[in-house]
Amino acid sequence: MGSTEGLTGPLADYECTAITTAPQIGQLNPPHRLLCGPGPGNAHPRVHAAMSLPEIGHLDPAFISMMEDIKRLLRYTWQTNNEFTIPVSGTGSAAMEACMANLVEPGDKVLIGVNGYFGLRLSDMASRYGGVVVQIKVPWGQVFSFEQIKAAIEEHKPTIVGLIHAETSTGAAQPLEGVGQLCHDHGALLVADCVTSISGVPCHLDKWGVDAAYAGTQKCLSCPPGVSPLTFSKRAMDKLMAREDKVKNWYLDMKMVASYLVGGKGATRSYHHTAPISMCYAIREALTIVAEEGLETRWARHREVAEAFWAGLAEIGLEPLVAKEHRLPSLTTVKVPEGIDPKVVTKVFLDKYQIEIGNGLGELAGKVWRIGLMGFNSRMDNVAVLLACFKDALAQQGYGA
Amino acid sequence: MGSTEGLTGPLADYECTAITTAPQIGQLNPPHRLLCGPGPGNAHPRVHAAMSLPEIGHLDPAFISMMEDIKRLLRYTWQTNNEFTIPVSGTGSAAMEACMANLVEPGDKVLIGVNGYFGLRLSDMASRYGGVVVQIKVPWGQVFSFEQIKAAIEEHKPTIVGLIHAETSTGAAQPLEGVGQLCHDHGALLVADCVTSISGVPCHLDKWGVDAAYAGTQKCLSCPPGVSPLTFSKRAMDKLMAREDKVKNWYLDMKMVASYLVGGKGATRSYHHTAPISMCYAIREALTIVAEEGLETRWARHREVAEAFWAGLAEIGLEPLVAKEHRLPSLTTVKVPEGIDPKVVTKVFLDKYQIEIGNGLGELAGKVWRIGLMGFNSRMDNVAVLLACFKDALAQQGYGA
Repeated sequence: MGSTEGLTGPLADYECTAITTAPQIGQLNPPHRLLCGPGPGNAHPRVHAAMSLPEIGHLDPAFISMMEDIKRLLRYTWQTNNEFTIPVSGTGSAAMEACMANLVEPGDKVLIGVNGYFGLRLSDMASRYGGVVVQIKVPWGQVFSFEQIKAAIEEHKPTIVGLIHAETSTGAAQPLEGVGQLCHDHGALLVADCVTSISGVPCHLDKWGVDAAYAGTQKCLSCPPGVSPLTFSKRAMDKLMAREDKVKNWYLDMKMVASYLVGGKGATRSYHHTAPISMCYAIREALTIVAEEGLETRWARHREVAEAFWAGLAEIGLEPLVAKEHRLPSLTTVKVPEGIDPKVVTKVFLDKYQIEIGNGLGELAGKVWRIGLMGFNSRMDNVAVLLACFKDALAQQGYGA
Repeated sequence: MGSTEGLTGPLADYECTAITTAPQIGQLNPPHRLLCGPGPGNAHPRVHAAMSLPEIGHLDPAFISMMEDIKRLLRYTWQTNNEFTIPVSGTGSAAMEACMANLVEPGDKVLIGVNGYFGLRLSDMASRYGGVVVQIKVPWGQVFSFEQIKAAIEEHKPTIVGLIHAETSTGAAQPLEGVGQLCHDHGALLVADCVTSISGVPCHLDKWGVDAAYAGTQKCLSCPPGVSPLTFSKRAMDKLMAREDKVKNWYLDMKMVASYLVGGKGATRSYHHTAPISMCYAIREALTIVAEEGLETRWARHREVAEAFWAGLAEIGLEPLVAKEHRLPSLTTVKVPEGIDPKVVTKVFLDKYQIEIGNGLGELAGKVWRIGLMGFNSRMDNVAVLLACFKDALAQQGYGA
């Protein structure tokens, strides 16, 4: 066994010359941007500092203790008591996929509200895991009424209902009050996309009866992307734990992750994968900042800053896409005026002012800009500079002349 | 459309009181550990500094340019010219799963060499994607001979052969010279686990004919976990691109990731997911440090430091598990002497000396310790302190008395 005749091992090989030569790459020197697109936003300076703290191993008792802090802080931020509330070891789309991979069993009917790009993505993910996807639709930028959702649930009898609480492609906030109860009355689980709402817009997961929610860190939490919040209700965990088949995704298998991050009775924890430790430090610090500010204060700040931005837009004749009662304070889609080339405007922002704003995505490509005022970036100085840059960039195309 | 009678939107809701109150969590203050287990190791200080640089967006021209730097540096580090050579947006297991999710089509026969824990994991992943897994086995700590691999390929005619170049559970290095050609002669692709070998042990992917390889950053690259190197040869990309079904994993769908990170002809790039930007800075810096040191120098340093450690172990009567000709310089498994409780020893290391070393995993639990001297941590001062701590911790159990 184990003979290696005719082979060379590391001992023989280590003197071997590297054939490809080392590339000459200069020092890393990224430009200093103000990030006011749909995300990422700029991280809070304290979050940067936290990432530089010395690493510990993912099985260190200090790691377990830090993970408990993160879970408690995340429960507060989402207003839930769900035991299973964790950071997933990937960016927001990983937490999104974790919902579908773990909760959708082959043949499950999944009803998805599509009023933007991320409803389409959720549908794609659900179908990859064998879900039978039924979509309901309203035009991008609008939201679903309670009656529309109710009628669709009664007609299609889904096992899972997926709604986008904050549509990052349109800037619309889907009301969720009462929707969880509606789903539960019909035997369905409610999944909500909170990527662009977490900590910037009220999220009352338990009050709303949301069974599974996912988010990103790089929006209102002001933490670089790399981990992503995920929570499952007891109802969702029960569905997962009752599965007899293996989840068709090893990295995002939340049965296995649960036994690592949450632990069973008797608190035995089994190694699953190496957690991204510096990113765990980052989200721990970002959530601490949320708790220090307090959710109500933070929600109100996002609201006041957005109101000021919207008032300023009106003054220069620019119009948000979404009706005010459904408009996200964290992300505003602004209609491109007739005759204006939107990409020339975003280029002026980036090249002249070092400010990133977003272009439209999917159906809204070429029709809107997307402006995020999220977390640390939700400030009056940013409102002032954004409005000034809009005036200049539009004037360069003769707007308002 | 879009009426919300009976619902409350973010406008009505933002004044709502948070029900759960903010937890009081103290300042983040992780202990300062020397990480000499199987990984993570301590990050290089320059990598920490890079993570604090200001974020840019994942569609920023400066991001695209930085990604090109990472790809060039990674090709050098792995000695490959593969165009598709990227950082995956998750830790090492995500890149591992990316190999199986993208290359294994339902019904494909996958031959996996199991000589440790990670061969088992690879088997689990392959089977979740519909692969028909055939395992060959040698005892943990040993490696496969060319003849064994050849005989198994001829018998089972696999589509994919998976071997663990560096078994993180055992510390054994699997020779791969000639194995790629062998696979290709039989119409199979060769997948190699390089998690604990990349940049610390010679990896000649093109010379060896490896078609897909994955690694971690938290071992010999001295970069915190959070992104993970992945490369596919043209042969592997051809298999992927010829697939008619959708890859059953959205986040790790490398067809979609390729059009984002690599671009098609004409260099159109389409958004896939938000990349973990600070971790991309980190790996870019870590790979720059590798290129500055030079691979040959770095391999030799790992070798010399390991030799010193092994000599010191012999002096105190401790014996490595793996035969010297197959022993990884980056990771040494040390046999637990009779009568010694291994977990008491690791606890002395952690509590008295703030040093993490690893316990045995799987079949080797309780039988070995795992000591990593990787990347930045591969230094003579660490050898000296590890040996001194071993002496003290063992003496506490009466060893050598």
